[in-house]
Amino acid sequence: MSYFDAASSLPLHPVARQALLASLDEGWADPARLHREGRRARMLLDAARQSAAEAVGCRPDELHFTPSGTHALHAGIAGALTGRRRTGRRLVVSAVEHSAVLHAAEAHERGGGTVHRVDVDRAGRVDVQEWGEALGADCALACLQSANHEVGTVQPVAEAASLCARTGVPLLVDAAQSLPWEPVPGDWSLLTGSAHKWGGPPGVGLLVVRKGVRFAPTGPADEREAGRAPGFENIPAVVAAAASLRAVRAEAEAEAARLRALVDRIRARVPALVPETEVVGDPLRRLPHLVTFSCLYVDGEALLHALDTAGFSVSSGSSCTSSTLTPSHVLRAMGVLSEGNVRVSLPAGTSDEEVERFLDALPGVVEGVRAQVGAASGAIASGGDAAEESAGASADALADGSMETSADEEVTVDARGKLCPLPVIELAKAIGEVPAGGVVRVLADDEAARLDIPAWCEMTGHTFEGAAGVVFRVRRAGG
Amino acid sequence: MSYFDAASSLPLHPVARQALLASLDEGWADPARLHREGRRARMLLDAARQSAAEAVGCRPDELHFTPSGTHALHAGIAGALTGRRRTGRRLVVSAVEHSAVLHAAEAHERGGGTVHRVDVDRAGRVDVQEWGEALGADCALACLQSANHEVGTVQPVAEAASLCARTGVPLLVDAAQSLPWEPVPGDWSLLTGSAHKWGGPPGVGLLVVRKGVRFAPTGPADEREAGRAPGFENIPAVVAAAASLRAVRAEAEAEAARLRALVDRIRARVPALVPETEVVGDPLRRLPHLVTFSCLYVDGEALLHALDTAGFSVSSGSSCTSSTLTPSHVLRAMGVLSEGNVRVSLPAGTSDEEVERFLDALPGVVEGVRAQVGAASGAIASGGDAAEESAGASADALADGSMETSADEEVTVDARGKLCPLPVIELAKAIGEVPAGGVVRVLADDEAARLDIPAWCEMTGHTFEGAAGVVFRVRRAGG
Repeated sequence: MSYFDAASSLPLHPVARQALLASLDEGWADPARLHREGRRARMLLDAARQSAAEAVGCRPDELHFTPSGTHALHAGIAGALTGRRRTGRRLVVSAVEHSAVLHAAEAHERGGGTVHRVDVDRAGRVDVQEWGEALGADCALACLQSANHEVGTVQPVAEAASLCARTGVPLLVDAAQSLPWEPVPGDWSLLTGSAHKWGGPPGVGLLVVRKGVRFAPTGPADEREAGRAPGFENIPAVVAAAASLRAVRAEAEAEAARLRALVDRIRARVPALVPETEVVGDPLRRLPHLVTFSCLYVDGEALLHALDTAGFSVSSGSSCTSSTLTPSHVLRAMGVLSEGNVRVSLPAGTSDEEVERFLDALPGVVEGVRAQVGAASGAIASGGDAAEESAGASADALADGSMETSADEEVTVDARGKLCPLPVIELAKAIGEVPAGGVVRVLADDEAARLDIPAWCEMTGHTFEGAAGVVFRVRRAGG
Repeated sequence: MSYFDAASSLPLHPVARQALLASLDEGWADPARLHREGRRARMLLDAARQSAAEAVGCRPDELHFTPSGTHALHAGIAGALTGRRRTGRRLVVSAVEHSAVLHAAEAHERGGGTVHRVDVDRAGRVDVQEWGEALGADCALACLQSANHEVGTVQPVAEAASLCARTGVPLLVDAAQSLPWEPVPGDWSLLTGSAHKWGGPPGVGLLVVRKGVRFAPTGPADEREAGRAPGFENIPAVVAAAASLRAVRAEAEAEAARLRALVDRIRARVPALVPETEVVGDPLRRLPHLVTFSCLYVDGEALLHALDTAGFSVSSGSSCTSSTLTPSHVLRAMGVLSEGNVRVSLPAGTSDEEVERFLDALPGVVEGVRAQVGAASGAIASGGDAAEESAGASADALADGSMETSADEEVTVDARGKLCPLPVIELAKAIGEVPAGGVVRVLADDEAARLDIPAWCEMTGHTFEGAAGVVFRVRRAGG
């Protein structure tokens, strides 16, 4: 078994386990109490705060422990927005922030505020100039992740922070993915993190609010954690979180270099091993341990299950692997293929052999999943060199009766009611039916089609001519 | 060392520790993921939910794990109020709820809602009739604790729930203190609890929302725990919490009977052993393991430290033991003495011998603390039989020059700028200066005086004639 989903959650680091066990005995009492058990708990809490602050690069009294990274984001965003509500009610975020940030932004909109979502390029990176233009006098807060959780792209945080500082807008950095690797650079104002992303226990987030940043805690008052994280302190978990962050950081540089080489190998070899696959995310400015790719004609959920059976645990931003039926907002914002999406995030200690086994297994797994939906290699004649192929109709596609040929070298495929990846598979089969320059109209009501049909065109060289309602027009290359 | 502060927090129950260790290895992954680690985590979470729901007496899909009892209260109150905002914006609470409830009520008021605080009697219990009268057509929610956390008084929850049901008002029960002992009786609508109060780990609260109760989660959306508790699930802690709740409940009946006898012993013997001490809280309708008393002429913080040195960890609702400089709102609402307040809450397993040692040590500890503030027994001539004592002035009190005798058999004591228990000590000394029927005017600006001077009168038989600003008038008994 190889667990390649480090970006979701990590097993407890041995240092975290040891610290947790020790502090279960020492840190269970209420640190607000005056008795010896309370004072002992307070000492542990203070020491953990000191240690975490050193790793983050802030003062201990700027760092608050929260029950999760999500709580840190929700509390940090709400507190900073409220603290600056007299300045303005505009919030700037990147379009590829974690859903906790985007949900907080939606809550801000429901409360009457406005949100400016800064677009990203096809690699998932915000443009610094566009970021600067989004700031302005009425801007209360800007949020930018240090690195993207789905595709690994590192954001220009230091540059964004400079622009924010210049306009007096506080920058909140969601550092959940990068904090295990290094401190966040630049002159940021608020920062959040989540311990289970670095091998700490669940139940611990970090919220750092720099001195001088206007901040007004929202919700009911509470005496704990300077009013920024209500509820009884989870001291054993906090101690374990702080200890493991230091332990992980001590090995981060060497481990990052090693994993970066393994990820480079996956990035290079997957497109060669698996036909019609796209590696997404910035190839250079990226997290060391994370790589994401999408495979045409693949049901993401089926692919995850097949990889699981083959002994590999990965995650996916495909719509069919989530409860929402919409593809990951990150892939959507990047405008890249979402079907057959796989995120591989290697935990520290992943061996060469595990990665080799994965690369050995992947082609067969993808082929098997494609065969299940009638899209095994050879069944589809629509590759990047589509224009040079014969225009012979695919017997499969004709046989299912969903395709009609119009007078004007146009074929219409009715894929309504069919979910990803079927609309794209039917498009791919139909493109062989029209001559170069001919048009395939796809009727599709699956949300993913909106992303995957244009992305398929980008990958295969055909021309996406636009969508109107449920109708997508694709012109065959070479016309 | 005897830890007698179970009502604050308990060390980890052995069953919780075992479950926590086991699930650290099995339950660290994201339960929303499809891979085997995720599915295993999901199974543990589901099993814990099932188990906790059985102990609470609800359906598993009605129970949500939150990061703390405080979070459960904040989310439960906000969600229920928002769900019924079209019905009305009035919130009914008892005056002796946990501060997390009262802070949520204040937040509701800041947001434009109204709050009706139902008074309690001198034993800390709400009057059922008054409770019923507080409900009404515009009432969105009522909150009543199952038992008070400071004095142990059990509230008439089942009766309150019936009245709520009759008027269609949902009742939220804060069951933090009683849940280790038994399920909450009656037809309640929402319920909260906190695992570290029963020997579970910190970081786990319970929020139960009965099917059919209107509930609208507030704050940013989140997919986890039905949107009622955002953030990554803390599965190892949740598993440990559920396992220990069952373990604690299995022994609750026998242990409650045993501890009740020990508490009865403390209730009976403390007033006999320590002069001028009042046991507070309902003598019968109370938690099995908790007893609270207040000692006249004692600095609560000094008493806590002295008990700690003597090997006993207790807590206190005296103002000088908290950062707020106001006495516990519970003691205030009850109208009982707050100075020298001590809460003894026995953990399961407390032995006869430990309680005997406490009872042996207490008189000397109190005497020592009283001596520090010049109030050792004999130094004050103002006991319950004050009227029969000689009216000889206390040399100490006269010597410090803070007392003046007026023409009209009135003595004025200026205790402004002095903190609890000094104003009461000076009053007690001065009462000996006036004849029966004479008056002592105390000038005092410490918040605690407002509570402690009337309470002192109640205990000693003198007449409290009222306060105006910083001036308190007390008429000596027997006039």
